[in-house]
Amino acid sequence: MAPSSLSSRFHDSLTRQAFRSYLAEFISTFFYVFLVIGSSMSSRKLMADGRLLEPSSLVVGAIANAFALSSVVFLAWDISGGHVNPAVTFGRVVGGHISVSTALFYWLAQIIASVIACLFLKILVVGVHVPTYTIAVEMTGFGASMLEGVLTFGLVYTVYAAKDPKRGPLGWMGALAIGSIAGASVLAAGPFSGGSMNPACAFGSASIAGSFKNQAVYWVGPLIGAAIAGLLYDRVGYPSQTADSISGIAEGDRV
Amino acid sequence: MAPSSLSSRFHDSLTRQAFRSYLAEFISTFFYVFLVIGSSMSSRKLMADGRLLEPSSLVVGAIANAFALSSVVFLAWDISGGHVNPAVTFGRVVGGHISVSTALFYWLAQIIASVIACLFLKILVVGVHVPTYTIAVEMTGFGASMLEGVLTFGLVYTVYAAKDPKRGPLGWMGALAIGSIAGASVLAAGPFSGGSMNPACAFGSASIAGSFKNQAVYWVGPLIGAAIAGLLYDRVGYPSQTADSISGIAEGDRV
Amino acid sequence: MAPSSLSSRFHDSLTRQAFRSYLAEFISTFFYVFLVIGSSMSSRKLMADGRLLEPSSLVVGAIANAFALSSVVFLAWDISGGHVNPAVTFGRVVGGHISVSTALFYWLAQIIASVIACLFLKILVVGVHVPTYTIAVEMTGFGASMLEGVLTFGLVYTVYAAKDPKRGPLGWMGALAIGSIAGASVLAAGPFSGGSMNPACAFGSASIAGSFKNQAVYWVGPLIGAAIAGLLYDRVGYPSQTADSISGIAEGDRV
Amino acid sequence: MAPSSLSSRFHDSLTRQAFRSYLAEFISTFFYVFLVIGSSMSSRKLMADGRLLEPSSLVVGAIANAFALSSVVFLAWDISGGHVNPAVTFGRVVGGHISVSTALFYWLAQIIASVIACLFLKILVVGVHVPTYTIAVEMTGFGASMLEGVLTFGLVYTVYAAKDPKRGPLGWMGALAIGSIAGASVLAAGPFSGGSMNPACAFGSASIAGSFKNQAVYWVGPLIGAAIAGLLYDRVGYPSQTADSISGIAEGDRV
Repeated sequence: MAPSSLSSRFHDSLTRQAFRSYLAEFISTFFYVFLVIGSSMSSRKLMADGRLLEPSSLVVGAIANAFALSSVVFLAWDISGGHVNPAVTFGRVVGGHISVSTALFYWLAQIIASVIACLFLKILVVGVHVPTYTIAVEMTGFGASMLEGVLTFGLVYTVYAAKDPKRGPLGWMGALAIGSIAGASVLAAGPFSGGSMNPACAFGSASIAGSFKNQAVYWVGPLIGAAIAGLLYDRVGYPSQTADSISGIAEGDRV
Repeated sequence: MAPSSLSSRFHDSLTRQAFRSYLAEFISTFFYVFLVIGSSMSSRKLMADGRLLEPSSLVVGAIANAFALSSVVFLAWDISGGHVNPAVTFGRVVGGHISVSTALFYWLAQIIASVIACLFLKILVVGVHVPTYTIAVEMTGFGASMLEGVLTFGLVYTVYAAKDPKRGPLGWMGALAIGSIAGASVLAAGPFSGGSMNPACAFGSASIAGSFKNQAVYWVGPLIGAAIAGLLYDRVGYPSQTADSISGIAEGDRV
Repeated sequence: MAPSSLSSRFHDSLTRQAFRSYLAEFISTFFYVFLVIGSSMSSRKLMADGRLLEPSSLVVGAIANAFALSSVVFLAWDISGGHVNPAVTFGRVVGGHISVSTALFYWLAQIIASVIACLFLKILVVGVHVPTYTIAVEMTGFGASMLEGVLTFGLVYTVYAAKDPKRGPLGWMGALAIGSIAGASVLAAGPFSGGSMNPACAFGSASIAGSFKNQAVYWVGPLIGAAIAGLLYDRVGYPSQTADSISGIAEGDRV
Repeated sequence: MAPSSLSSRFHDSLTRQAFRSYLAEFISTFFYVFLVIGSSMSSRKLMADGRLLEPSSLVVGAIANAFALSSVVFLAWDISGGHVNPAVTFGRVVGGHISVSTALFYWLAQIIASVIACLFLKILVVGVHVPTYTIAVEMTGFGASMLEGVLTFGLVYTVYAAKDPKRGPLGWMGALAIGSIAGASVLAAGPFSGGSMNPACAFGSASIAGSFKNQAVYWVGPLIGAAIAGLLYDRVGYPSQTADSISGIAEGDRV
């Protein structure tokens, strides 16, 4: 690959169209993090009298994820592809559906959005601290990261299926499927590893809460899971008949 | 703009077609408020023995909002645009998708519907008072209004995305996305500012409960948030290729 | 109208095609009642130690209604129109979308299905009695019937909107909207009048539980609400451009 | 039927296309079981202090089933037909929509996926045992199997309706209906027979938990219910106009 092509590809990441994609990722990630972390703060507020966490807190977390993720993915669907998640972006890079330079801007937009969302929550919502994802005492960091990784695999695999051009136009149906599997994943992992599956969300809350303990757990597993999902779907399982160009702004993500 | 055009635009707001739109806004807002405030009264009834509010009350509120909003937006979708909310109507005025005079009739229909819905609840449901939205003691009115404003921004932004003609016909999918983000927003804001995001709903319950305390909180933030969402989506982010005529009855809202 | 035409219309209700519609109503109503009343028995079983009903029981009822109704309406949608509810059938008769004789067979299928579903529950589920809908002590029977009537109005109005041919093919989206508004209605009315909105469901559970107390409450209000909804949607609000023939098997219900 | 045709049919089950179907069944069943059994472990973890099961645990189970099933059925929908359940596969064999030899490979994929999913849960999630489906003390095994059978009938009947080519392309709408009826079924049967409706899921959790008590309950009823559903829908109720070839890989399942 010639440097000239590399630089032209970098230029592709700086067009007006590209900035719209970054804006879409920023707004969608902002609301995803704001709603998911905010819901967790609501739950904590209602339990502030020292009562133990109970299944209904888990339901709050799962519904918040399903509702928020499906709507923000819908918002950005045909603009940026609706990643809203560095792991999803990584999984799309691995499959060659988005260029590395564009992906870096996506990551930047996602991470900044998440930090700002948590900052807003810290400022606006008084009386409860911004929480971080925590791991059950019985779990090791390695186990938690594996668990998050398996669930992120499922999430990214669903993203691939929802964006597969062989399936014809699914419109928002794909966004709904993505939100649904995320909601079920929170129910399965909530009390064990938190059920983040989104490194940006984990980073944003950690940076505002001021505690990066176990941060690697929420990056390593999800990124590996996302990469395997992309390779398995695209290379082994159901190779796309349409040639994916790596040059565009999430060209392969358009529906 | 000539006075004649202004008066002709006012006449447009008085056609048979226009009255159908107002009827649609009336019926949809009536049911939205009836179901959302009614669900809150159900929760209170079950907690009447003095138990503290708990996460499952929050789930009741969120599901009621998501289910009710998506179905009533569906009801009015291709008739009035399915605003059901003065903040949404305001956001559409700012973007130029609906004329000011039509918007005033929408507001009237929404507010009257909300008051009547709360009156029905007061008469029909014995044993529990019609509740008003309240703010957590730690929160300031300004903070609560900001929180409601951020969430209304998200709601109106989703309305814009769902009605964007560039997306092709989404049908009820858009209504579902709107209901989903509203449900998640209730989870995030419930114990802090109530999660109204709808000035008509706040006004109706306050007028029947007889307490307008903090009423401004549920108007100022949401209206500002709605206006910014409309401007950002339409002017900065994703300008509509189709010319929006401001003359019709929610012409730009038709799908 | 000549007797010959009346008899020919009755014959239309006895064709092979018509029997398929009755079978569809039977199966869908059976599962609706089985799942909704069964969920209520599950809730009671978990509360069997004397704990008070709490918001999470309300969530169980609402989700059961939304999930069950939207799926069984989907099952029968393009066969019988997916009424699953004598009030809906009555509302469609009033609007002239289904003939009286066909409607009587629909009612028969719905009521028999509901009784058999509750009988199955009584036989299969040991340890909990089949429950009947009850009214909060503070409520009068008249108030409860009005509340059920308002909610049934909303449900039938949504059915009309979902079946309006002017909206183009909605497919299962309409079934989803119908399930959603039913779910929200249970949240609003649960602790007050039970949130039945379905006379067949109320009759079936009452006949197996052996108590017809307040049975009229669950028929009078819903049937009146359904009739008003049909007239308002079809005659006042949004008259159908397509001529509805009253002769067929739910001809007007086909999508 | 000549042996040669039998062997050729067996060869059809060993094509590259067929292996993709088995992979799809494997991945979808893996995630279904992982999420459903994982959610049950989450619930138990939160109740670990000896509190009694309550309705919100039931909500966790129902939402997990609805979210997980609709998304994994979506994943495999146009590849393998999205069975994810030996009872569904059996019901499709009975209706002649899939050949016996292909069905055996489906069963194999489903059962192996379920065992591996539960093994992953056992290894990854520390502090809670992998649970098995249990029957309420008041219930007999026969009653529990009948209850599971009735619910599986409803599930498979919905699968038939969702795959009926006469309905035109439903896309993911069918997957959503399937997930919805499964969610409602868990609410109805949870505290009585567990609400499995999926022999693979019951087998996987039992094999890892090391207790095959009542295992027959989760096979006999569901398989009989599935067979009756297939025969009733296809032969009695709504015979398919399209000739179903029995030779292909889930030919009749393609949408």
